[in-house]
Amino acid sequence: MLALRNRFDDLKITGVDINENHCTKALELKIADEIKPFHEAIPAADLVILATPVNVMLKQLPETLELIDQSVVMDLGSTKSKLGKSVANHPRRSRYVAAHPIAGTENSGPESAFASLIKNKHMILCDRTLSDPDAYQLVEKISRQLEMRVSHMNSEEHDRHIAYVSHLSHISSFALGSTVLDKEKDEKSIFAMAGSGFSSTVRLAKSSSRMWAPIFTQNQDNVLNALDAYINKLQYFREIIANGDENNSSRLMDDANDIRRILSGIDNS
Amino acid sequence: MLALRNRFDDLKITGVDINENHCTKALELKIADEIKPFHEAIPAADLVILATPVNVMLKQLPETLELIDQSVVMDLGSTKSKLGKSVANHPRRSRYVAAHPIAGTENSGPESAFASLIKNKHMILCDRTLSDPDAYQLVEKISRQLEMRVSHMNSEEHDRHIAYVSHLSHISSFALGSTVLDKEKDEKSIFAMAGSGFSSTVRLAKSSSRMWAPIFTQNQDNVLNALDAYINKLQYFREIIANGDENNSSRLMDDANDIRRILSGIDNS
Repeated sequence: MLALRNRFDDLKITGVDINENHCTKALELKIADEIKPFHEAIPAADLVILATPVNVMLKQLPETLELIDQSVVMDLGSTKSKLGKSVANHPRRSRYVAAHPIAGTENSGPESAFASLIKNKHMILCDRTLSDPDAYQLVEKISRQLEMRVSHMNSEEHDRHIAYVSHLSHISSFALGSTVLDKEKDEKSIFAMAGSGFSSTVRLAKSSSRMWAPIFTQNQDNVLNALDAYINKLQYFREIIANGDENNSSRLMDDANDIRRILSGIDNS
Repeated sequence: MLALRNRFDDLKITGVDINENHCTKALELKIADEIKPFHEAIPAADLVILATPVNVMLKQLPETLELIDQSVVMDLGSTKSKLGKSVANHPRRSRYVAAHPIAGTENSGPESAFASLIKNKHMILCDRTLSDPDAYQLVEKISRQLEMRVSHMNSEEHDRHIAYVSHLSHISSFALGSTVLDKEKDEKSIFAMAGSGFSSTVRLAKSSSRMWAPIFTQNQDNVLNALDAYINKLQYFREIIANGDENNSSRLMDDANDIRRILSGIDNS
């Protein structure tokens, strides 16, 4: 919202949130110009942006489509197939554009907003043929005006890939944080030795369960595939270490070093 | 070395490295004033700092103790028990101080050195009673002069804790990078959607296998304990997700959020 405001001078942003503190804060931080109830705000908007946990969105998207006429609705959710299916037969499905900006932090709430978050980040737009061309083009145009890099794919591909490069990272991080916190019950000073490497790998464990629990449910099949592949890899690594097999251990790590190729692309973006 | 040089004006640093490019680079970057062969450098030094992969150190530490008289030897290795045992009966064991600075990056080689790396970081000194007081105090004093925070523990505690807060992080990160790179063979564009969260969790997968393979071997028992706890946690998380059990999934994540308490300590340091 802050990025939109910086880019478009005459924008009027109406906020809708069930949390009153968030509403007050959003006005204070000028993230919203006004706060209105859902049923008043939606019919008056030219563009509706849904940014709630994905389980709430399943209910909210059809309700939103009921309240609009020719305006455009987009979401920012991290899973796409279930949500798309929930409105597949809705008469106003084509006013909806499925979007996922690959940008976020482990923090939540209005205080976590900052305008530079999305610049140069990827905006994934899904299922182009299911949206009216004018609706899809509007979202694409705004994304480009916010200096995002736009990609197009279908929901199934989105959900399959995002399970590996986002959902699995969160699971690995939550599980790692939880494992070491469990150990802290017996070994009080265990974290005295934690450094920046540990910090980096568990950063995502600060993320909100309200946001993530429904993501894992909605993308269950893909998440389980990714998680099984990860657990298998860890079990293989475990055997190698148990056998003192430094050749295969080194080979696994040398192969994993190829991640530099990927990370230099992300870090330069 | 760069931090030592900045702090102590009249320091003469003699570099020893089997890699000739590293030697040339170290002179260029003024990390070392001169390069000498091991057998010449060690007897002439007041303080010997061993900073090689831990398997090399197992051979190098006894050899070093053979070549010194009253000078002090310290290491910077990430495992402590095995190394300590390797010189337990050496007549000059008490000139050796077991040290582990909790500071490093995923990069290696002389070009990766930067002077501010260790300021405010933890320096773990182990097995105080096995070192001569003057030797231990010298290493402690230098650490404090480099503005490090010094902790004391025995080697066994060090190795048990570091398995959880460092070695396990590296394994989780190598395995995560490797899992997604495997998937890329079928899904070419999978990394197009990777963002900063993914980047953070796999950063350590860039680390050097030459450094890490022997660490996992030397700290095998503790690493396997930590890794088993982690795999168990992931399997529990998997079952929760497979059951669509968002209550227990949220509970696991809410508990893991307590990692904020730890990370604020690290990030402020």
